[in-house]
Amino acid sequence: MQYFEDFAVGQKFASARRRHVEAAEIKGFAAAYDPQPFHLDEAAAQGSVFGGLAASGWHTAALTMSLVVGSDFRPAGGILGFGGELTWLKPVRPGDELRVESEILELRPSRSRPDQGLVAVRVTTLNQHGEAVQTFTPTLLVNRRPL
Amino acid sequence: MQYFEDFAVGQKFASARRRHVEAAEIKGFAAAYDPQPFHLDEAAAQGSVFGGLAASGWHTAALTMSLVVGSDFRPAGGILGFGGELTWLKPVRPGDELRVESEILELRPSRSRPDQGLVAVRVTTLNQHGEAVQTFTPTLLVNRRPL
Repeated sequence: MQYFEDFAVGQKFASARRRHVEAAEIKGFAAAYDPQPFHLDEAAAQGSVFGGLAASGWHTAALTMSLVVGSDFRPAGGILGFGGELTWLKPVRPGDELRVESEILELRPSRSRPDQGLVAVRVTTLNQHGEAVQTFTPTLLVNRRPL
Repeated sequence: MQYFEDFAVGQKFASARRRHVEAAEIKGFAAAYDPQPFHLDEAAAQGSVFGGLAASGWHTAALTMSLVVGSDFRPAGGILGFGGELTWLKPVRPGDELRVESEILELRPSRSRPDQGLVAVRVTTLNQHGEAVQTFTPTLLVNRRPL
């Protein structure tokens, strides 16, 4: 577990495991949360801008979070963010294997909460070809080391 | 269905329905994608910064997408974004009822794709008290009206 004081700008963390993405999971997530033809059906997806079945960006984001939670990035108090810039760079396809890399961008003590600090992170989600499919740059609230 | 030409800056769209959020769904989503104690267990959540069970921000984002897909905002070619700024403003709790409001912020033709335009939107997710719980401001790719 890492307190605010344990982080340094430029520090990097990687997911311990990879997450395999199956067509059934892509369709199941889409049916629940993003029921658009190119996320639900191979034939419809062929004729779409994706040219084949692609995961919802929100599915990619959720899979990314599961990889971050399972990584060696373990801020004290949990992974708690106010949000950030989210960018989808490439479609996630059936058969893809995702992993994440996180890098600390900025650290600053919280003025309103003296027992916490703000940690800006860039979380990059990569596929099995090493291509970035998503980046997310949240600001997280992390506990300071108790005195 | 709306083509790029059918949108105007300032135009607003609302979700047709509301989405009720249950504790079981919060825990189920968290178990799959964001397994942190404050999203999984009432007792653990009591002692956390949330002071009670709260939905994963990614769950809020996914529920928001389902409400947008079911709204009267129906851009030609589907709701396809490159990402945007995502901000979580308040926790989503068991029993909450979510709805969305979308507002067109900016319109510009795509230089690289003459048959498409870029539409910047602010999507605000509100609870039953009218409080904004999340905002997302994506840029979407929307088909132009065929000549």
